[in-house]
Amino acid sequence: MTPLPPGAMLGILGGGQLGRMSAMAAARLGYRCHIYAPGADEPGMQVAAARTVAAYEDHDALARFADQVDVVTFEFENVPAETVEVLARRVTCRPGEKALGICQDRLQEKAFLEGIGVPVAPWRAVRTEAELQAAVAELGLPAVLKTTRLGYDGRGQAVLRHPDDLAAAWAKLAPRPLILEGFVPFTLELSAIAARGADGALAVFDATENAHRHHILDISFAPARVAPEIAAAAQEHVAAVARGLDLVGLVALEMFLLPDGRLIGNEIAPRPHNSGHWTLDACTASQFEQHIRAVVGLPLGAPDRHHDAVMRNLIGPEGMAAWPGLQGLAGIAPHLYGKAEARPGRKMGHANRLLPLGALVGMDDAAALGPLAAIVA
Amino acid sequence: MTPLPPGAMLGILGGGQLGRMSAMAAARLGYRCHIYAPGADEPGMQVAAARTVAAYEDHDALARFADQVDVVTFEFENVPAETVEVLARRVTCRPGEKALGICQDRLQEKAFLEGIGVPVAPWRAVRTEAELQAAVAELGLPAVLKTTRLGYDGRGQAVLRHPDDLAAAWAKLAPRPLILEGFVPFTLELSAIAARGADGALAVFDATENAHRHHILDISFAPARVAPEIAAAAQEHVAAVARGLDLVGLVALEMFLLPDGRLIGNEIAPRPHNSGHWTLDACTASQFEQHIRAVVGLPLGAPDRHHDAVMRNLIGPEGMAAWPGLQGLAGIAPHLYGKAEARPGRKMGHANRLLPLGALVGMDDAAALGPLAAIVA
Repeated sequence: MTPLPPGAMLGILGGGQLGRMSAMAAARLGYRCHIYAPGADEPGMQVAAARTVAAYEDHDALARFADQVDVVTFEFENVPAETVEVLARRVTCRPGEKALGICQDRLQEKAFLEGIGVPVAPWRAVRTEAELQAAVAELGLPAVLKTTRLGYDGRGQAVLRHPDDLAAAWAKLAPRPLILEGFVPFTLELSAIAARGADGALAVFDATENAHRHHILDISFAPARVAPEIAAAAQEHVAAVARGLDLVGLVALEMFLLPDGRLIGNEIAPRPHNSGHWTLDACTASQFEQHIRAVVGLPLGAPDRHHDAVMRNLIGPEGMAAWPGLQGLAGIAPHLYGKAEARPGRKMGHANRLLPLGALVGMDDAAALGPLAAIVA
Repeated sequence: MTPLPPGAMLGILGGGQLGRMSAMAAARLGYRCHIYAPGADEPGMQVAAARTVAAYEDHDALARFADQVDVVTFEFENVPAETVEVLARRVTCRPGEKALGICQDRLQEKAFLEGIGVPVAPWRAVRTEAELQAAVAELGLPAVLKTTRLGYDGRGQAVLRHPDDLAAAWAKLAPRPLILEGFVPFTLELSAIAARGADGALAVFDATENAHRHHILDISFAPARVAPEIAAAAQEHVAAVARGLDLVGLVALEMFLLPDGRLIGNEIAPRPHNSGHWTLDACTASQFEQHIRAVVGLPLGAPDRHHDAVMRNLIGPEGMAAWPGLQGLAGIAPHLYGKAEARPGRKMGHANRLLPLGALVGMDDAAALGPLAAIVA
């Protein structure tokens, strides 16, 4: 594909922080962005050249939007299938329906990962309470019951520890299609992010080590403090995902590291990912720039990391309370997303700490966090 | 001053690339930007949360703009005095009238620099042709005749080499107030950029070495390849300028290095400056972020440089011809400004090359430029 020329209009569906940071990366490359989202003051709207405020189900607005842009991308994977169809009839969408379809359904996701050779936790599809009981009998407890669609940040799931938990979990989550996942006793959560260009070229960022609190990402350490062969395996897994999805764009793969050194694939996100925000300050081309480069058909940037980095999210009022203290510190790059209200659990921004290359190896969390330790998750 | 809270609306007068990159830095810190400029599709408009398209002399539009923003700053110093007055009656303007007034008049600028102890080239005010002849008799030839106001990138000036040149230069530039500047045989052009916070705190970036072509900045090398005491003197000079202007904001000082090691102050720009674009990729807080931090009352970031850097402008159609070849190269960060038409002499973007700290010392231009050598200025 010939790259879209400077000044071309890039359509982004979704106006949150991922759309916002993508739009800024696009602007740096000379593109204009048209953001389509349901809310007028969403973070992405504040930095866009053009805006459509409309529902994702508004086919007329979608058609008008498609006719005004040169390519469309998405800041989230849970786009209604009809929305993508309406857009794809009129304009190139990246990633396409295959990647979105697989990534928005946990059953397809698991089957896809197994198919490309990425191990996953044992799982069973669950459509009835009888199937739930059978699945628990097979996989044992503890296990996690999840909706197959629209889950994120721990929503749409229930942990089953006792046989007594099944009825309440079923009542909470049914009648939606569900999946039971066997519990894997992991020692570490990792992620890796790959960009894949229209020409099939791959650029994979270093694997990242992640810590969650209350099911929301709290801290990312880049590079992950693991053995080189484990980091390399994480990168190979996400590269396989990008190839397997026939993706043009960016994809993140969340993984669990088991005590025996094996990596288990957990979730795929075909878009910029919270665990890649450190690339904004520690790489020449951030994950957002790679995403844009892939989508517009430009060659990918080098994924080289010029610093070790620690990213911590600023979540809700507690996170924002730390904001004033993060200013004016050497090596700390604070970022906010332009959200008016700091509701509990809401991602308001993040801060990156830069460390010299190689410094993270063997550092404990407190030393790695430095001033970021003052942020309460 | 208490910093403006996240979400506050920052007014920027001017919609060019400096306003654009300032607006993106403000967005990163959670602020919204309202850009005021005469053209609807100017670069800054494409990344702003709010826009006013109106003339700088439209007092009603200025008043409405002032009432909608929490502070105003400027991407250029040649703001009509009445424009600043209208705004300043309603909202804090940074920098204020003193800094703008001095920096938009070459006579005031020279007197100010002399007053704070920064040497300048010999100069004379010229209001009549007789004064021009007297000034040439005193300063000798060659010399440069310039308008005292509204000059940039070599516009509004004429080089006098022969007594015969005077009449043509006078015809070209009169009846505007003029200044004759004695020619200084410099060996190098340097600049330095300082941010000064509302609390008087200073943060000074490393001195930069600049090369011009056709009176337009072509290349900046950071740090300047000069003796440490010369680099330090350049930084001290710009710090003195920031203090002397009682500035809250950012200021750049262009200087000439004489063969005897002395630095001569040339021009002051109280705003982000083309010779500071390398800070976008080689510092944690860029010049644009420092500008925003000062204007909104946040503590300044550390001006530490984490790489040596070379910046080259992409100018006109020739510069844009190099754009495709700058993609996908390790250590090269390309930037475009969203300008539709690549007219000759127009600054369309720039590319930064990052080198390891210390690498620039003793490197010749070709080695320092690397892939940037392919850009034709």
